[in-house]
Amino acid sequence: MHETILDVSKRRGIIYPSFEIYGGVSGFYDYGPVGSALKRNVEDLIRRFYLVEEGCVEVNCPTLSPEDVWVASGHTKSFTDAITECSKCGEPYRADHLIEENTQQSVEGKSMMDLWSIIQEKKITCPKCKSSLQEPYNYNLMFQTYVGPGKYKTTAYLRPETAQTTYLGFKRLWEFARKKLPFGVLQIGHSYRNEISPRQGVIRLREFNQAEIQFLVDPENKKTDKFDSVSEIKVDILTGKGKELETTIGKALEDGVIKIQFVAYQLGRAFQLFTEMGINPARLRLRQHRDDERAFYSSDTWDIEFSSESFGRIELVGIADRTDYDLTAHMKLSKQDMTVNIDGRKFVPHVIEVAYGIDRPIYCILESCLAEEQDRTLFKFPKNTAPYLAGIFPLVKKDGLPEKALEVFKTLKNNRVYIFYDESGSIGKRYARADEIGVPYCITIDYDSLKDNTVTVRERDSKEQSRVKITQLLRHLSLVDNSKEVF
Amino acid sequence: MHETILDVSKRRGIIYPSFEIYGGVSGFYDYGPVGSALKRNVEDLIRRFYLVEEGCVEVNCPTLSPEDVWVASGHTKSFTDAITECSKCGEPYRADHLIEENTQQSVEGKSMMDLWSIIQEKKITCPKCKSSLQEPYNYNLMFQTYVGPGKYKTTAYLRPETAQTTYLGFKRLWEFARKKLPFGVLQIGHSYRNEISPRQGVIRLREFNQAEIQFLVDPENKKTDKFDSVSEIKVDILTGKGKELETTIGKALEDGVIKIQFVAYQLGRAFQLFTEMGINPARLRLRQHRDDERAFYSSDTWDIEFSSESFGRIELVGIADRTDYDLTAHMKLSKQDMTVNIDGRKFVPHVIEVAYGIDRPIYCILESCLAEEQDRTLFKFPKNTAPYLAGIFPLVKKDGLPEKALEVFKTLKNNRVYIFYDESGSIGKRYARADEIGVPYCITIDYDSLKDNTVTVRERDSKEQSRVKITQLLRHLSLVDNSKEVF
Repeated sequence: MHETILDVSKRRGIIYPSFEIYGGVSGFYDYGPVGSALKRNVEDLIRRFYLVEEGCVEVNCPTLSPEDVWVASGHTKSFTDAITECSKCGEPYRADHLIEENTQQSVEGKSMMDLWSIIQEKKITCPKCKSSLQEPYNYNLMFQTYVGPGKYKTTAYLRPETAQTTYLGFKRLWEFARKKLPFGVLQIGHSYRNEISPRQGVIRLREFNQAEIQFLVDPENKKTDKFDSVSEIKVDILTGKGKELETTIGKALEDGVIKIQFVAYQLGRAFQLFTEMGINPARLRLRQHRDDERAFYSSDTWDIEFSSESFGRIELVGIADRTDYDLTAHMKLSKQDMTVNIDGRKFVPHVIEVAYGIDRPIYCILESCLAEEQDRTLFKFPKNTAPYLAGIFPLVKKDGLPEKALEVFKTLKNNRVYIFYDESGSIGKRYARADEIGVPYCITIDYDSLKDNTVTVRERDSKEQSRVKITQLLRHLSLVDNSKEVF
Repeated sequence: MHETILDVSKRRGIIYPSFEIYGGVSGFYDYGPVGSALKRNVEDLIRRFYLVEEGCVEVNCPTLSPEDVWVASGHTKSFTDAITECSKCGEPYRADHLIEENTQQSVEGKSMMDLWSIIQEKKITCPKCKSSLQEPYNYNLMFQTYVGPGKYKTTAYLRPETAQTTYLGFKRLWEFARKKLPFGVLQIGHSYRNEISPRQGVIRLREFNQAEIQFLVDPENKKTDKFDSVSEIKVDILTGKGKELETTIGKALEDGVIKIQFVAYQLGRAFQLFTEMGINPARLRLRQHRDDERAFYSSDTWDIEFSSESFGRIELVGIADRTDYDLTAHMKLSKQDMTVNIDGRKFVPHVIEVAYGIDRPIYCILESCLAEEQDRTLFKFPKNTAPYLAGIFPLVKKDGLPEKALEVFKTLKNNRVYIFYDESGSIGKRYARADEIGVPYCITIDYDSLKDNTVTVRERDSKEQSRVKITQLLRHLSLVDNSKEVF
């Protein structure tokens, strides 16, 4: 499956390795024309969900930030992997991965010395040349650089996550939120992780896209009055104790499996979001972090995972109660007050984080939507994420049909949708090209269109064609809301 | 003016310096909630212009790229400033700026040795401590880092422009464009420039946002059949010879001032785009590069500049015929063929680049739209870029008004627009808050709304209020296209 998706992806301009002409560097991918459209639509959907429906605000912070930020957050110290190198061929390995592959045992939480002891004890050697391995060393996964010249030269890092850069602006955002909790802050952007040897295509990238929402909440009130809207959602759960459940969000909260109502609500919303993107909900699972993997300050942490045919379980979003850990850390190092005062109670707000990757969900959309039929291989993207909503085709390139088609094109485009115009090749070829990149509708303007102002609308999945009045096109494509009671 | 805009910007969550709690680093800014909305809308508008109307495609490439890319493009060698440092206090200066300030003469094109001679000859000293200056050295403006561990460690740079990363994928894009010229490729994203001492707020940033379009064209046909749509646009021009003209795009091409029709068309489109963003077109000027500043390979290069009250002339977009320079450079270093074959003619396509900054136009929108009236200071953003199209307000927080208001909210939001709901404070206060961040419409739901399904729509600039049927809201806010002939 992975081969197919990545092969199709390259051919159809979705995603492909970067710098190919220079031999490539693993962990870097380009989004091509279709991939960029998917990415834009996924990001737009996230914005509609969180900015409009949840009333969050958005920020955009630099990807490059000074050392202090990452000292406070703990990344300079702890955002590391232990590397062991072969004494002969010099190949570097992640010590934990190598041990786990050799011993089938988890080394979660082990110290560098422990890892070195196990390597020696179990006589683990270089998988490539079988020579002995060297003592592991700490390798920080942040990309380091320097800002400014001469005496002003200072150390900076490419951010490994957007979250910390959002926290830095807390005091300004608090003013903007009119000093009320809860409020949510979305940041969409690149983050970086200097992986030792990324090998899983877009699943593990050195430069990747994130959409992280930080909800600032009152520690005494981690609730929402909107919980009912998600309580009936059916989900598969793997608890921190390793128990598998088929239940609902509401029941899981009631039973104490999910510990915090606000976290339960966000899990439900993320599940809805993935479904609206076009990810197959039957392949999603809510996984609670085990005690030994959860950050010490967090009271409950969850992932939503997708069951991929090529990569096994992939984490798509992490939802964690981070308590006051981050704001307090920045408060200490910067000596800036981050407390708030609500009705005489003075406290540092807690953070509940919803941390989406963008690249992985896009891959999962591809896996969920790829359909191989007898006479065609197509993507059944939902309208929300399809690269274009429709293609506009004049039947032939003459007799006023292009002009009429461009008229339809012009009016549709004014409704804030992505459409394209195509007049080359037979209609069948144009349908095929549209199917390949998952365009839901093809609109053909023919000779009758000139007489009666109707067009042929061909639907991608069913291949069904219907004759639609141009005046009804907006409604037919659901571009105006159909809830007639109101409008 | 600059003070006002930046003060207002901080207070209203538009743009403010990054890392403030750690003392800040010059050249880095955060977009706050309102600024992020402006940025999103500016980028959306650029996408609508180029992807939908011009039929371009979009790509997203990494910001971090290996050394080869920047060797081929010439950036490792030439993307430098000459720095001279004070022999006593160590303060670093750009040698060219220092000489120009002291001698009022341009040093464009002078070598490092020339600069050093002038400094010695004119006895230029450190402006801070008056001590002697040291011999200048070359300072590369790219941020450097390393990718990968141990023996795989390789040099990489944060890109100083998106353009080169777009060129790398040329062969794939050529396939996607079905091997026809012209085609255009948009890339929106961050770029980086390790400025020596950035001091002009968001005008000169170390990490900035770009939207660059590379049009691949046939060197024998740098034309478009859409030129008529821009030929009547009235523009102020400063020619490369220093002549000021008031003319039209069409006349400027006819008179040979603009040398290439495709470039003239793109100048017209950029002018239209800035106007639609909300930038005052009366403050725009088309400036042709002088012979001594134009890249040697370019036959014609233009900027569009904005006349800022705080910063003087600011370059907002550069439009250049880059010929086959970049593709040929990458072809040579990578040994990959970048020629195309059209009707038996084999050649490397030419590139006409349209390179927008994002941060500067946003600043110019703020300068153009800030209005100081007797009783309020507001932003008169056009609907295209306003952070929200409308606020939805129930008159009071009871008697079913919030429910009715949320019903209107829900239906409007389904039409792919950004709106917000606000029920706190008096209606007057809510109007004031909406004005401050430039929201065009406020929609109030009152007791009459429950009876006759009408709402009060208050328009920002005129403050006029009108009673609108809920069923007519979409049309009133121009959310459905009004060209009734078609729909």
